[in-house]
Amino acid sequence: MIVVMQPGATREEIAMVCRRLEELGFKAHPIYGQEKTVIGAIGDKRALSSDALVNLPGVEKIVPILKPYKLVSKELKNTPTIVRIGGVPIGGRSIVVMAGPCAVESEEQLMVTAWAVKEAGAQILRGGAFKPRTSPYSFQGLEEEGLKILARVREETGLPFVTEVLDTRDVPLVAEYADALQIGARNMQNFRLLKEAGATGKPILLKRGLAATIEEWLLAAEYILDTGNPQVILCERGIRTFETATRFTLDLAAIAVVKENSHLPIIVDPSHGTGNWKYVVPLARAAIAAGADGLLVEVHPDPARALCDGPQSLHPETFERLMGEVAAVALAVGRVAAGGSESCWGWKPVGTEAIKRKAQTIKRKA
Amino acid sequence: MIVVMQPGATREEIAMVCRRLEELGFKAHPIYGQEKTVIGAIGDKRALSSDALVNLPGVEKIVPILKPYKLVSKELKNTPTIVRIGGVPIGGRSIVVMAGPCAVESEEQLMVTAWAVKEAGAQILRGGAFKPRTSPYSFQGLEEEGLKILARVREETGLPFVTEVLDTRDVPLVAEYADALQIGARNMQNFRLLKEAGATGKPILLKRGLAATIEEWLLAAEYILDTGNPQVILCERGIRTFETATRFTLDLAAIAVVKENSHLPIIVDPSHGTGNWKYVVPLARAAIAAGADGLLVEVHPDPARALCDGPQSLHPETFERLMGEVAAVALAVGRVAAGGSESCWGWKPVGTEAIKRKAQTIKRKA
Amino acid sequence: MIVVMQPGATREEIAMVCRRLEELGFKAHPIYGQEKTVIGAIGDKRALSSDALVNLPGVEKIVPILKPYKLVSKELKNTPTIVRIGGVPIGGRSIVVMAGPCAVESEEQLMVTAWAVKEAGAQILRGGAFKPRTSPYSFQGLEEEGLKILARVREETGLPFVTEVLDTRDVPLVAEYADALQIGARNMQNFRLLKEAGATGKPILLKRGLAATIEEWLLAAEYILDTGNPQVILCERGIRTFETATRFTLDLAAIAVVKENSHLPIIVDPSHGTGNWKYVVPLARAAIAAGADGLLVEVHPDPARALCDGPQSLHPETFERLMGEVAAVALAVGRVAAGGSESCWGWKPVGTEAIKRKAQTIKRKA
Amino acid sequence: MIVVMQPGATREEIAMVCRRLEELGFKAHPIYGQEKTVIGAIGDKRALSSDALVNLPGVEKIVPILKPYKLVSKELKNTPTIVRIGGVPIGGRSIVVMAGPCAVESEEQLMVTAWAVKEAGAQILRGGAFKPRTSPYSFQGLEEEGLKILARVREETGLPFVTEVLDTRDVPLVAEYADALQIGARNMQNFRLLKEAGATGKPILLKRGLAATIEEWLLAAEYILDTGNPQVILCERGIRTFETATRFTLDLAAIAVVKENSHLPIIVDPSHGTGNWKYVVPLARAAIAAGADGLLVEVHPDPARALCDGPQSLHPETFERLMGEVAAVALAVGRVAAGGSESCWGWKPVGTEAIKRKAQTIKRKA
Repeated sequence: MIVVMQPGATREEIAMVCRRLEELGFKAHPIYGQEKTVIGAIGDKRALSSDALVNLPGVEKIVPILKPYKLVSKELKNTPTIVRIGGVPIGGRSIVVMAGPCAVESEEQLMVTAWAVKEAGAQILRGGAFKPRTSPYSFQGLEEEGLKILARVREETGLPFVTEVLDTRDVPLVAEYADALQIGARNMQNFRLLKEAGATGKPILLKRGLAATIEEWLLAAEYILDTGNPQVILCERGIRTFETATRFTLDLAAIAVVKENSHLPIIVDPSHGTGNWKYVVPLARAAIAAGADGLLVEVHPDPARALCDGPQSLHPETFERLMGEVAAVALAVGRVAAGGSESCWGWKPVGTEAIKRKAQTIKRKA
Repeated sequence: MIVVMQPGATREEIAMVCRRLEELGFKAHPIYGQEKTVIGAIGDKRALSSDALVNLPGVEKIVPILKPYKLVSKELKNTPTIVRIGGVPIGGRSIVVMAGPCAVESEEQLMVTAWAVKEAGAQILRGGAFKPRTSPYSFQGLEEEGLKILARVREETGLPFVTEVLDTRDVPLVAEYADALQIGARNMQNFRLLKEAGATGKPILLKRGLAATIEEWLLAAEYILDTGNPQVILCERGIRTFETATRFTLDLAAIAVVKENSHLPIIVDPSHGTGNWKYVVPLARAAIAAGADGLLVEVHPDPARALCDGPQSLHPETFERLMGEVAAVALAVGRVAAGGSESCWGWKPVGTEAIKRKAQTIKRKA
Repeated sequence: MIVVMQPGATREEIAMVCRRLEELGFKAHPIYGQEKTVIGAIGDKRALSSDALVNLPGVEKIVPILKPYKLVSKELKNTPTIVRIGGVPIGGRSIVVMAGPCAVESEEQLMVTAWAVKEAGAQILRGGAFKPRTSPYSFQGLEEEGLKILARVREETGLPFVTEVLDTRDVPLVAEYADALQIGARNMQNFRLLKEAGATGKPILLKRGLAATIEEWLLAAEYILDTGNPQVILCERGIRTFETATRFTLDLAAIAVVKENSHLPIIVDPSHGTGNWKYVVPLARAAIAAGADGLLVEVHPDPARALCDGPQSLHPETFERLMGEVAAVALAVGRVAAGGSESCWGWKPVGTEAIKRKAQTIKRKA
Repeated sequence: MIVVMQPGATREEIAMVCRRLEELGFKAHPIYGQEKTVIGAIGDKRALSSDALVNLPGVEKIVPILKPYKLVSKELKNTPTIVRIGGVPIGGRSIVVMAGPCAVESEEQLMVTAWAVKEAGAQILRGGAFKPRTSPYSFQGLEEEGLKILARVREETGLPFVTEVLDTRDVPLVAEYADALQIGARNMQNFRLLKEAGATGKPILLKRGLAATIEEWLLAAEYILDTGNPQVILCERGIRTFETATRFTLDLAAIAVVKENSHLPIIVDPSHGTGNWKYVVPLARAAIAAGADGLLVEVHPDPARALCDGPQSLHPETFERLMGEVAAVALAVGRVAAGGSESCWGWKPVGTEAIKRKAQTIKRKA
């Protein structure tokens, strides 16, 4: 920490700051400049609320030097963390795609979607049972019934699933069913929820808050690691800016910043990040090219009738195209993705025919 | 709702959108323009996720016409709502100031602060027992012990208090002690917490999320009103922007926008809104001049030793000055504030001497 | 300047940074911390592009300590600068209001507006002859004809005027007519224009860029002062944020930040700052309460037919109300404004009748 | 255009809006809803300042339907525009990389850089002779001497060059030397400069303003096309947001939005877009994956001694790596880039040895 004194700070003021720093357990090193004096404070800033020193007479500002996070930091652990969701490793050489509808609406809707995304190469299913909605008049999710549907679809398709938990009280219930818990953007700084979810020991998918700095996001992950659970996947999903052509502004530089500072894996959600299905495929490619470890993509069998986030949901056929294009980019950056064949350009969309047959079987059963 | 068709949309596409609108219970009114066709849809948009229509062939975009909120709207109730916290009315002619430390640190700290702010004219005490902190290594609050201290200080000073609740599980406990529950900025879209807090019937102080539009904020309030509890006070506390000279950017135009669209009272928190005690007094004056119904201000007897938000906390003497200056501005806009005498310019700071005596009494007792 | 070294920086890397600093004329003071070494560099950072040092091996980041501006700084000149436009002092105890239409459309339009704003208490006329318009298809201004109209209206009403200059080539022409030159928000970092306008010696009204930090704004003013012209008035006019309920977000804390760091006067433009005439009056009051030295307000005799910025233009009667309310707030903060009588509440709108008579006289002449 | 009336708007108010619309040359189609009436206005909004209608009694808001731009629009021209700079086509299948130092500092510095970037595969040289600098105390460029150096380096290396023009007065001079003119982010809405630069008929590289919406950016391009010059290349270079880990937030979704709405080519500047050389390579890959037609990259032979933008400049060896990685991604998205061999993974960095030899030759000459 560096304490910057005001231009006219007196000797007494400087001495008082030094004394106060020593009281707080720091060693104080003043440097007397031509216009200003700065005081280097050696010690561990994390232990105290040292920004309050700015109130001492003659102090202009406090400049922190150490990063405020520890456990998530590459300075502590310099090898990439690999998180496993139902056996699928995230953070290694393979790109992992998690896909599914915004909200679980019915068993049929989810089953059709799950088969479609699986055949296209997705390895993890996503779907909301508890939905945070801006308006109280919007569909709020099927709740426990939604979790049961997710579990049945997992049983049939073999896809592990991630689903959001909104409330500390629901954590045990959701953890009973889900392979991984999602903390949504609006709950990124719901610190109680972070602790409670972390304590389950389940993998946590931590979305970036829509006005959260990368540092705040890593500190939110630090809350989870601090419970003893290192299984955190970060998910960039767009931040709020002045631009209105897209719903949010996807911050792909965040991938590079996270990779420089943390050992945690990071994936990208181009569906929320753009809010418009037309932009999902190019931004998915860009995310992988920038170094993301995976994607979270919204897919709906009939987007025009989706109860939630229809405008940004991909039709299964577009999702297949996404998987093929992502696989090509993955290879170009030295990684592999399940959606494409191993041959460099010979990727061929998997069968929508197969998906339709599957869907008909399900309808017959119902 | 208006459906805007793409320039080359075919007759069939237009007909299909009209059919779909009729299915959803709307009446469709197409208008054929020179370059584009638009379709007016008459009916209640709130009932359905109509934005999914954008996925129909030939549709360019959906333009909502109706406001998405109802209960908080001036269209529903055209007289100002007056909320009472421990008998103090907020939203009427009087400006109400809520003041106190960021966090309850000890009974002495709170008692001294409470007497100081009361003597300066504050009518409601604020203080955090449960603290949402960006870092897991920061002081997290005294929790129930903090609530007990708040209750004892209320008993002695007569000041009702507002305190934050972070977790649905704590709502009954906090509601047992507090006169009003605060929903913090980071929880503005914690919809479960909104519902649970609303259901207590207690007044709710709803802070604006740091990336929340005014419309989203009113929709968050709508969640509370939807529980049958109309006692909501909105609190503007600054939004995230690119400017770093202040911690947040206080959006005072939000007061005018809220007053135009809603019947709910609105107050301003210049402490969080600026993050720097030097800017709190001028922004407090500005908030009242813009039409705010009150203020929420952080005051600490020794800001340089505060465990939380020291840089933005006022020393009690500065707070007295704030109260005097706010009272003068209140009169200028046709309102009254407790801090100033009724004479236009004759305001005189109340006695810091009295506060010091009180503090000594408390120390002796301890 | 502080150079922060990476955690694992070697002795050689530290030594090399110190050598490089000495080469650049700094004295280097390394402080060896537990986790990181920081090197204090004593000297004048402004002289060189020292941020390039971040490329030296082992360097993590550079933290500037000195403010990058000098001439505009309070550290250099601790008394408020008073700028005079046609004899009207800005930056003293009196609040100065500059008002008029967005664009000069005709002599009649400007004459009627000028008389109206003068009778309401405005002391300076504003009006655009050269208009920066987002679309090439919008009205671009009357150019020199507009300047001539402004000059004739000044002659008749006695109001000095400020008008925008867009192009270095127009500076001599505009300076020949105008009492003060406005640099618009979109040109705040048009450094050539700043220099050219500054060199005229005329007072310069420097609007804040819509994505400019306060520091960048003061550096833009520094360009003007660096030409030897100290006559700069800063004008806050709203910044770009995610909020869409207003056209921009008026940053009133900027007033307090500017007053803390600079001796230059600052005024506020609530018309552009909100983009909606309904919000202009409360925000004008708030600006004065926050400490602004004046206002810039758009007024149009028939806003619904304005060729530019109609939605944010005040009708003359609303402007009269603004002047009265501003005068009351000015008194509350220890200042005076021309719009109100000296008695605290006895303000009475000046005669719209008189304005209408004047307008009829003008029509008869035309 | 749609005029939305307030909930309580009277028949007379609706009739008056219709009459006014007819006066303005629109046909008015009112639709009477349950809560609100909306009026569809058929005609060409671009002709008039119709937003002023919001001031008519009973009007709530105006919703534009047509895009405000025409010439840049895909609705007008549905095939991609290919712009040629010194014979190099931009906007076709090939990815074009423009590289060079932020500022031209000396002939040797530029010559070494030019050979280095050429050997790595760059096809166009960039370098600033006129520099827009935030501070008046920073290096402002070599001006005409810089242009001469650029011309000499072009002669020797065969690389055409693009350079920024800051002032309408300099347009003839810069156009005399340069193959393409750059309009910088801070001048994106310097409309006079747009017109003057456009009128030269030279290709224009138009950077996005740091707070400009995509729509405003396309309107700025419209100014240039309106001079009869269709040779515009858009350049995304990051927007201002709250995130401070990077200097700006690179908005890669802008590529997809531009490609959806315009026929103009778009390139990306990952150097300014991140402000940190460590993030340039991954973001360059991402830009190409997202669909960009090229890149603009800052390269300096000794970044730690650069007079401008050192922190974001690549060392030539890192630039070679960038070119190889970009070439692989280009192939993955069905395009080609000059930096890589045609074989999928066999790319090998071109010779830094060759560059060093070249540099020595130049030094010997000097």
